Parts: sequence; structure tokens; C-alpha cells
Amino acid sequence: MADVQEAAPRAARGRRGGGGAARRAERTAPKIEAARYITRNIPDFEVLTPEAIEIIEYNAETILEEVGVAFVDNPAALDRWRDAGADVQGERVRIPRGLARKLCATAPSQFTQHARNPERNVEIGGRNLVLAPVYGPPFVRDLDGNRRYATMEDFRTFVKLGYMSKWVHHSGGTVCEPTDVAVNKRHLDMLEAHMTLSDKPFMGSVTEPERAVDSVEMCKILFGEKATEAPHMTSLININSPLTFDATMMGALEVYAANMQACIVSPFIVGGAMAPVSVAGTLTQVLAEALAGIAYSQLIRPGAPVIFGAFVTSIDMNSGAPTFGTPEASKILYGAGQLARRLNLPFRSGGGLCGSKLPDAQAAYETANTLNAALLGGVNFMLHSCGWLEGGLVASFEKFVLDADQLGILHSVAAGVDISENGQAMDAIREVGPGGHYLGCAHTQANFKDAFWRSEVLDYRPYETWADEGAPDSMALARARVNKMMNEYIAPKIDPGIAEELAGYVARRKASEPDAFG
Amino acid sequence: MADVQEAAPRAARGRRGGGGAARRAERTAPKIEAARYITRNIPDFEVLTPEAIEIIEYNAETILEEVGVAFVDNPAALDRWRDAGADVQGERVRIPRGLARKLCATAPSQFTQHARNPERNVEIGGRNLVLAPVYGPPFVRDLDGNRRYATMEDFRTFVKLGYMSKWVHHSGGTVCEPTDVAVNKRHLDMLEAHMTLSDKPFMGSVTEPERAVDSVEMCKILFGEKATEAPHMTSLININSPLTFDATMMGALEVYAANMQACIVSPFIVGGAMAPVSVAGTLTQVLAEALAGIAYSQLIRPGAPVIFGAFVTSIDMNSGAPTFGTPEASKILYGAGQLARRLNLPFRSGGGLCGSKLPDAQAAYETANTLNAALLGGVNFMLHSCGWLEGGLVASFEKFVLDADQLGILHSVAAGVDISENGQAMDAIREVGPGGHYLGCAHTQANFKDAFWRSEVLDYRPYETWADEGAPDSMALARARVNKMMNEYIAPKIDPGIAEELAGYVARRKASEPDAFG
Repeated sequence: MADVQEAAPRAARGRRGGGGAARRAERTAPKIEAARYITRNIPDFEVLTPEAIEIIEYNAETILEEVGVAFVDNPAALDRWRDAGADVQGERVRIPRGLARKLCATAPSQFTQHARNPERNVEIGGRNLVLAPVYGPPFVRDLDGNRRYATMEDFRTFVKLGYMSKWVHHSGGTVCEPTDVAVNKRHLDMLEAHMTLSDKPFMGSVTEPERAVDSVEMCKILFGEKATEAPHMTSLININSPLTFDATMMGALEVYAANMQACIVSPFIVGGAMAPVSVAGTLTQVLAEALAGIAYSQLIRPGAPVIFGAFVTSIDMNSGAPTFGTPEASKILYGAGQLARRLNLPFRSGGGLCGSKLPDAQAAYETANTLNAALLGGVNFMLHSCGWLEGGLVASFEKFVLDADQLGILHSVAAGVDISENGQAMDAIREVGPGGHYLGCAHTQANFKDAFWRSEVLDYRPYETWADEGAPDSMALARARVNKMMNEYIAPKIDPGIAEELAGYVARRKASEPDAFG
Repeated sequence: MADVQEAAPRAARGRRGGGGAARRAERTAPKIEAARYITRNIPDFEVLTPEAIEIIEYNAETILEEVGVAFVDNPAALDRWRDAGADVQGERVRIPRGLARKLCATAPSQFTQHARNPERNVEIGGRNLVLAPVYGPPFVRDLDGNRRYATMEDFRTFVKLGYMSKWVHHSGGTVCEPTDVAVNKRHLDMLEAHMTLSDKPFMGSVTEPERAVDSVEMCKILFGEKATEAPHMTSLININSPLTFDATMMGALEVYAANMQACIVSPFIVGGAMAPVSVAGTLTQVLAEALAGIAYSQLIRPGAPVIFGAFVTSIDMNSGAPTFGTPEASKILYGAGQLARRLNLPFRSGGGLCGSKLPDAQAAYETANTLNAALLGGVNFMLHSCGWLEGGLVASFEKFVLDADQLGILHSVAAGVDISENGQAMDAIREVGPGGHYLGCAHTQANFKDAFWRSEVLDYRPYETWADEGAPDSMALARARVNKMMNEYIAPKIDPGIAEELAGYVARRKASEPDAFG
């Protein structure tokens, strides 16, 4: 697989000084493979007709003009909107038809997010798909099957698993909430973990504007002053649907946009509660919200990199619970992708979403439905691509490795069909003929190693072998894989001076204010 | 849901004579809902470029012309091919470029398979998708978690579950192998079960030509002499890939085609063993085999209804086991759909395929990957849509109901996006405005009942409630659903005279020869 880069030798070199022991470590160190982000060689699947798109785009502009959006507790934002030509009444911003779309035009259609290992840089937008892990759960399901509050140690484990996962391109952000660290300080530990335990790109903090400032400052330590010349973080700015932009999230967006860092501007919608129960109505609201939020990012700094987000689930009308992997969510994903491409903007949606409390069949059906829709729907940045459980309340180690394994499938489907002479395999068909078999033929021998995607965790053994070895279900197989990966983890090399400077920054900032909780 | 028809009252009437008890039974009988077959309002997903299609079609004709296909132990077939203009040497049939495609042109692009309840008739071809259960497993995984040989009682249970499953349109064929009945007689019991325990369409026997004759004869009892004027069965004719057509399967096809019954002509391929390890090479062979098989059906009777089949899995090159839900299988499915549509023929592929030994996360990932590909890839007839486990060795009751539940999702995705005024929901967005919520608004109240697909088996309860009630995983939830459905089962009404005549035919045929096993 030409797209897979091997990182182990350098990582091993990083851990030891040199000489015989280092060489031995190098030889025995497990390979840490990292696939390049996906570049699709397949078309996008689209559910909206041109007429449907026209109606939804027209309606979204009508909503922006007639109903408007609220920018809460943010007088500077209101001034910016007024100056741009919007009608501002109190905190309500009514945006004349066409203005938001026009403002969005300065955002780049594609950008590079830089990683400290340049081989891990990702291209966000165009035909590309970048996969990032779960974001936000306050709980973990640990390997003993306990559901408990997440800790910083759990966080570090997820960062390590992400680093070790071949098909995961991005280290993510709040892979779980480290609830054992003060709420006003945990972002520092999280950033330090991403920066030192992985060499993949990562996300910044959005929970207060000053934490976004910390994120930028730590990036300057890691990347130098060039950090703010190009995107080194991609951070998640949720919109308070319906149609509301709060000061915390907008404050973080302002910091990032001003410093040329990327934001995902993402309506966060449980359909039926925060948007209409219909697909077309939800898409109209998603488009109105994304237009307003992305336009605002361009008011802060024209050209600031941004991603059109859409996080949409349905609601179970009996229990009120959010549901995942549903047909409505898939259709909204497909449609939102079309709307984002009409704006020529990178698109974020989908991921390994599920409502199940366990990494069981329910979780996997729901997850696979979402992963498949996200691949075919043209998603460019997939948050929650692995590890998400129980509606995002729980991060699961087992599900992390099960999902991460499935992500390999996306790479292979996206590559499309090889129609070269070798792909056509006419010599093989001629060689084998009626009634023969292909196992030993020359074409098979030459191609079998790379011909098929192969799971690293699922079980293909014969029934009897599997039963003799304890009949493990997927959860048991996943637990074994988590343990194996953690045993094999070796941190990627980092300049010791930079690591020290990061630790110093974290310590100083932690000492500068008292702990806050809740 | 306008497409769902309610069958319960009639079923209840059928069980009892009339009067007060019958009316009470009618009122308390659980509703047995049956969805209409799917008609897609979404496009097909295609991975082959026009150039790739051209190459594959050219290569398939080259294979037919240069390599040819083998019709084994079937002199009459060789005569037919010779008369049609093929070059026949021994059992090898070389088909001049273009001949097979020309012969295929007389097959209908769409046909109706009739059921004894006309409301259960299905349209096979065009934009339609018909869902049928698992076919062929010799084992079952029972509700006590035991893997054991399947029995006729298991078979009847699956037929009942299929009848009770809203989203399953077809009763299928060998839903499991009833190994407790003699191999030369079990087809009689299987047909009688489909005919009497369900009112959905079904498949005929293919394991010997004379069993196909029995299938036709029993259809004449059930449907009258009109049975052979139009398709009342759709039966599975596997090709012995590579490029081999055996006398048993071809003999069954000859019976069905001559009697105007539909056949699925289906290359059965474990990629890497029975076809090249490449997607394009496999598609070339699939096309060559389907062209030859379908052309042969038209030599038997021009206009005989037929389905272009493609059952393709990959092989795990380490263990030799077939694998499912893989990216290669998805790409072959998408490509084969394109090739079938170029022939203007109904297409069969996919289903709830998996390699897992348990209805766990592995099974569900693999199944959902296949179901999603089959929906978007334009499949018209989906065998194995529910209940398939362990590479088709095992039929699982739990997986049957889990998969059957997921099939509801396919219906909703296929319906596409409602862009009516009600779908646009502009009044709702205006009514709610920034910061409000939609739960109580007029549009939500008017639409919430039909707005979202809802699972009948997955768990959406809050964690605490779920934990208090024993923390059931998907398997446990599925077991409970199987038991509930079996408790609620009421056989659909059948003319007692017809039932008696069927039973008489079965008894006579069973008495006419000794039991054969193995």
C-alpha cells in the first residue's frame, strides 16, 4: 500500500540515544503505520435534485433575511454585522439576501492543516477526507466494562491509540473530557498530550476565548512563529441551533480566525428539537446557520480557513433520546454535502455515531450506516470517526479500535476501481479457465498481498478454532487489540527543548489562577 | 406511512369462524404490517467510468469468445448453443462476440412475481428493491446460543418471522436447510411451509430438476393453472465459477424458464479463489458468466424472466476464509449493478452478509456495509437481507430480527427528500425562531408520527433505565423480539381445500421414493 508511511524506525530512534541498544530496539519495534488522508476517486452520492437545492438555498436566504440569527452577549459582533450591511435589532441580525453567501466566498475551498510531522499534514477540502477521533464524551467505558467519568489518563490513552491507528489521520481534540483536571486548566493538559504523545494534527480549545489564546500560544511554542501564518489547528465551533451564536463559541472563533487557524462552523442539531422534523426543513436551517457563521468568520478575517459543518441526529419521539445511524441523518448528510459543495467549502459531518450503550451490534449498525453515508456523501473532515458510544456521552476504547479498523474500508472504497492491465486480469482468467481456481495463478501470486483490505481486529478463523479459543465476541477481540497497541506504543520523537517549553507554559498557566470545577 | 398495509384483521378472521370470539380476537390481534417493496427515489451510486465499463464489457466478450464456458453433463445444452451459433468443442462453449448480449435482449427488464396475497406481489427490476431473507445455512444459532444443525421446525420459525417482519417483502427459499428431513423430500416441506405459513412470494427448489418440477406442480395447486403463465417463483441458479454451468442447476433453470418462472442467474464467487483478486477482473468474469447463463435461459424460452446475479465475497488470504462487508465486495456490487443496468436486466446482489460467528459488532459492521452498498448500488432483488451469520453457514433468529429492523432504514433512505411545502417547514422555522425549540410547534405536532424511522428492537432508553433493566445487549434485545413475534404469530388465511391438496401432494411424493440423506 503505497499510501502508508512507516514511522517506527524514527520513533524508535527518538526514544533511545543510539548505539547497539537503539539498533536492537529499532529492529524489534513494531511498525507504526500511518495512512495518508483519503483522496476520493469515486463520485459523491447526492439526494437533492437541482430544483430541491434551489428551493433550500432560496429558503435559507429567506430565513436569514426575515427571521435572522441571534449573536448573544457579543456587541462587537453586532457592530461587525451592522458595518457589513446587516439589519441589527437588539441581538437579532437580519442578513440581506445574498450577503452571507457573498461573504463566504473569501473562505478557501481547501487548505493544509500542518502537523509537527510534515508527513502527517492533511489536506482539508476538495476530494479529500480526513478522519479524526471522537470528541467530547465526559464518560469512558473502560476495559473492565465500567462506565465512569473520564480522566486525563484515559485522554492520554486515546491520543496514543489515535497515534497508533493506521487509518486515523488526525489526533482530534477533546477525545474525552478529563474530568479529574480543573475545567479551566484541562485544555492545557489536553493540548500538551496531543503535541507530545502524537505527531498527527490536532484541534484547539473552544470552551473560552482565552483557552483558544492558550491553544495559539502553545502552537507557537511547537511550530514557532509561523504557527499563525497557516492552519495548525482545526477547532470545533458549534452553533446553538436554532439560529443562535453564543459569545463563548464566537469568542473562540474570533481568536482562531484572527490567527489564521481553521474552524468547523457546525450547526448542532437534534432534529425535531432544534430543527424541524423534516429533512428539507432541517437542511434549510443548517444552511442558514452555516452561512451566517462562516460569513462571520470572514468578517473577522477574510480568507480565514473554515469548514461547513453539519452535526444532525434525529430524536426518538417516544423517549426524547437522540438517535444515530438513521435514514433521516443520512439524507441530511448527503444533502448538506451538496449545499457545502455549492459554496465551494470543505464539509464536515458524520463519523462513527451511535446511540448504543455497548460496542455491540446496535452500535455497529448505527456506526456503519453513518460511516458509509459520510464516505459517499463527500465529507472532507470526519470528527467522531472512532470511539464514540452512547450518543457521545461515552468514549470507548473497544469501539475506538473497532471503528478505526473499519476506517480502512473507507480508504479502499474511495480508491475506486483499478482498470489498468493488471487490474483487468485477463491473463489470469485465460490461465485459469472454466472449473479451475485462482489461488495459485501468477496474477494472484503477484497481487494477493495488496489485493484485499484486511481487518486487524475482526475474526475470520474457522468456527471450531474460534470456539476452542473461548468464542470471543467483538468486544473481547477489541479489548485484546487495545492492550496490544498500548504495549507497543512508543512516543514519536520531539525536540526536548520544545517539550520542556510546553511543560513550562502549562505549569505557568496552571499556577496563574485557582482551579475551577463544573 | 402510506406504503404499509395492515393485514391483521383478515388474518384474525382467517383463524376463527366468526361471531363474538372472532371479533374480539380481531380487536386484540397484534397488527401485522407489511411494507410495499421499495421504489427508489434516489440515484444509483456508480464507481465505473464509461471507459471502465467499455473495457470490462469488451473483455467479457473476449472471454466468452476465446476461453468460453463449460456446460457440464448437458448434451442438450450443447446442442442448443450449437444451434444458436456458438462454437462447441467437447463441453466447452465459445460464444461469438455479441451473441450472448443479443440473446439476453429478450429477457424482460422488469416483471411481477405474484404472491397468493396480491397485496404482497413484488415488482422485480427498474427502480425497485425487493428484500428476501437468508438462503442456505445448514446450521442455526438458536435462542439458547447453541449452534446446531437446522431442523424443519427452525425453518417454519424463520418463515413465520419473515411473514411478521414489516420490511421483508419476500418469504425466500431455503431459509435454513431442514436437515432432519430427507434430502430428496425436504423441498416439499419447505414449499408447503412458504405456501401456508406466509402469504408473501417465495422461491422454488433448485437442487434437482425434478424438485423444480415439484415446485411448479405445487404452484399450480396454490395458484391454479395460471401459475405457469407468469412468475410465481424466483429461484436461485448459482454458476460454478469460474465459467462452469453444471447439469443440476441448469436442469432446474430449464424447468423454470420453460414454465415462465423467474431465475436468478448468479455467479457465486469467493474472490481470489473463483475469480481474479482484482475488482475489474472479477467484474469481467461476473459479466461473462451472467451473459452466458442468461443467454442460455433465453435459448430455453425467449422472454423467460431472469435476474442478473452477483454473489461476490473476498477471501482472507491468511486463513482462506471468505470475508464480507469488505471494500472489494462493495466496489464489485456497485460495478455489477452498472453492468446489469447496461443489459436492462434486474440485478441481484448484496444482503446482510457477514463472517462473524455471533450477532455482534463484527456481524453488524459487515452487514451494514453490505446493506448500504446494495441500497445505493441499485440492487433489485436482495437475497440474504436478514438472518445470515458466519459466512452463510448459520441462520440466526436474533440476527434475523436485527437485520429486518435495519431494512426499514433502506425504505426511508430510498424515499428521498420530501421537498413539498410541508417538507420545507418554513412556517416552523419562522414560528420557532432563534433560541426556541421545535418539540411543541405546529409542524412537529402534525408530522412527528411519520417523520422518523423508528427501530422496533434497538435500545434508546437512558443509561440508568437500561442498566436497571439488566443492561441488555443487542443479542438480548433481539431474543426478546423473536419471542414476542412468535407469540403474536397468526397464520394468514388459506383456502382449506388448497391446504389439503398441498398436504396430499407432499404426502404422495414423499411416499413415492425412499429417503435419501447426504
